[in-house]
Amino acid sequence: MNPPVQVQSSTHRGRPGYSRDDVIDAAVREFNQRGYEATSMGHVASVLGISKSALYHHISSKEEILDSAVTRAQDSLDAVVDEAIASDASAGERIRSLIHGAIAVLCNDQEAVTLLLRLRGNSELEKRALQRRREFTRRVIPLIDAAQASGEVRSDLDTGVLTRLMFGTVNSVIEWYEPGGRLSPDEIARHAVVLLFGGAARD
Amino acid sequence: MNPPVQVQSSTHRGRPGYSRDDVIDAAVREFNQRGYEATSMGHVASVLGISKSALYHHISSKEEILDSAVTRAQDSLDAVVDEAIASDASAGERIRSLIHGAIAVLCNDQEAVTLLLRLRGNSELEKRALQRRREFTRRVIPLIDAAQASGEVRSDLDTGVLTRLMFGTVNSVIEWYEPGGRLSPDEIARHAVVLLFGGAARD
Repeated sequence: MNPPVQVQSSTHRGRPGYSRDDVIDAAVREFNQRGYEATSMGHVASVLGISKSALYHHISSKEEILDSAVTRAQDSLDAVVDEAIASDASAGERIRSLIHGAIAVLCNDQEAVTLLLRLRGNSELEKRALQRRREFTRRVIPLIDAAQASGEVRSDLDTGVLTRLMFGTVNSVIEWYEPGGRLSPDEIARHAVVLLFGGAARD
Repeated sequence: MNPPVQVQSSTHRGRPGYSRDDVIDAAVREFNQRGYEATSMGHVASVLGISKSALYHHISSKEEILDSAVTRAQDSLDAVVDEAIASDASAGERIRSLIHGAIAVLCNDQEAVTLLLRLRGNSELEKRALQRRREFTRRVIPLIDAAQASGEVRSDLDTGVLTRLMFGTVNSVIEWYEPGGRLSPDEIARHAVVLLFGGAARD
């Protein structure tokens, strides 16, 4: 997974030598700020301070950028689920690991995951990504089921709603996480696990 | 607050007689699906099956639609906080009411709140709305502080992170709530309160 690259047009304008990942990261930030539909390759070139032809040297289309960024985010998130599913730990412990790992991915590839979470299904590519998001949820639900069966997770709540609420909490971190901020991704993940498992009322 | 109106171009095409709220609701759905920047007044007129001049009879600009919808959502959410703050109940109970009331607003005015939650600050109008969102959080934090002081909310977690995680959970409902679906807004709100206060592990 690629850490976010701090590209600012004011400091980088006119400097060549961007990698393909630099280009993708800068484009994704524009998509998130301006809206994917409303961002042109010209906007992306302008932010990077390069010509459109130089941009097309790296990347063939806006769709290719969207696809690369979203696939990168989904590969990282799937790796976290793969690991949780393959683990020998208890179901409850595996869900804790999953929450922790997903928050790490969200924080470390914040712009790409933001793009992923905002997809509306406006193209075949977006529809495939949404399908893969649903697949993620479908793989998580059996873990929650198992944790309910083992008594590690309360069984008086609807499994589907519980899963969506828990991952809603996880995903919401992306809205306010600030790289280099007061709390590290690890500390934020710890808060989320304590809140979601222990509850705000338990002291 | 206005309930969502089911406008479909196939059934309404060519039918006049929309109210201003109908026009706003249809436009907001387009903004959410297509992106605000990428939606023109022509798109909105087309969805409603009316001419652009008929559309301008109801509303003077895209910005006016955005402003009306976002203001409506924020007025509803502020009313929920007003009520929680004014209540004589304990701090913990007031937070529970706030969570419950906020989820009701999210579900009942889903498209307008979705628009609100996706604002990026791309104009003065959007910046004012984001400022008002921050104000909402600033009014909630003292309630969490009070609940920590009274022992109703655990005090070993950072108040700011706890507040953001709790309202992240609340806001996430908007992503998957389906009007007329299996669970009512009231049942979803109950799940959220139980999860956030009691935790997934408590049975």
